[in-house]
Amino acid sequence: MKSFIPYYAVIFSSLRTEGDRGYTEMAERMEALARVQPGFLGFETARDEVGITVSYWESLEDITRWKEQAEHLEAQRLGKEMWYEHYTLRICKVEREYSFSKRPEE
Amino acid sequence: MKSFIPYYAVIFSSLRTEGDRGYTEMAERMEALARVQPGFLGFETARDEVGITVSYWESLEDITRWKEQAEHLEAQRLGKEMWYEHYTLRICKVEREYSFSKRPEE
Repeated sequence: MKSFIPYYAVIFSSLRTEGDRGYTEMAERMEALARVQPGFLGFETARDEVGITVSYWESLEDITRWKEQAEHLEAQRLGKEMWYEHYTLRICKVEREYSFSKRPEE
Repeated sequence: MKSFIPYYAVIFSSLRTEGDRGYTEMAERMEALARVQPGFLGFETARDEVGITVSYWESLEDITRWKEQAEHLEAQRLGKEMWYEHYTLRICKVEREYSFSKRPEE
């Protein structure tokens, strides 16, 4: 991920409802769609009991535009209706960053 | 999690090496230790291919103090030596927060 500090992170932590009900397909679609938005920098996701998805953006304006993207609005609506028991979304300014690799990065 | 904006998040994203080699035990110990540090607000973790751990803190000073805690320093050393293929650590200021719950929070 190539980026210049400061940039922005959206941390989305969630507890899912039972059953898939189209969730996996929509999650994949939203990741693919996020990747082609202006200002998109990166995306990471993992789930155990809690799911954590972090997306990275160049600016707050990019995050607002993504939040209001039409297909994404529909996914948000379905998320509240069907897929999430609870979620918290945090918008953060990334102020410092450190990386470690066992092997040199390519 | 009770908190006042702004507060701080440490996003730790990692790729593990093969095998446990004491990792699980140390991860549990570090979570328990983090929870009793001054300024600690919350902790979330999930792992698929990538692991994402986010801890939340009242101030940057609390994060620095936790980073330099003696037992935690030893865990960081072992992490580089044994447990992580790659990691990125980001220190972020949480500027906005939204929550959704299907049921009212207790």
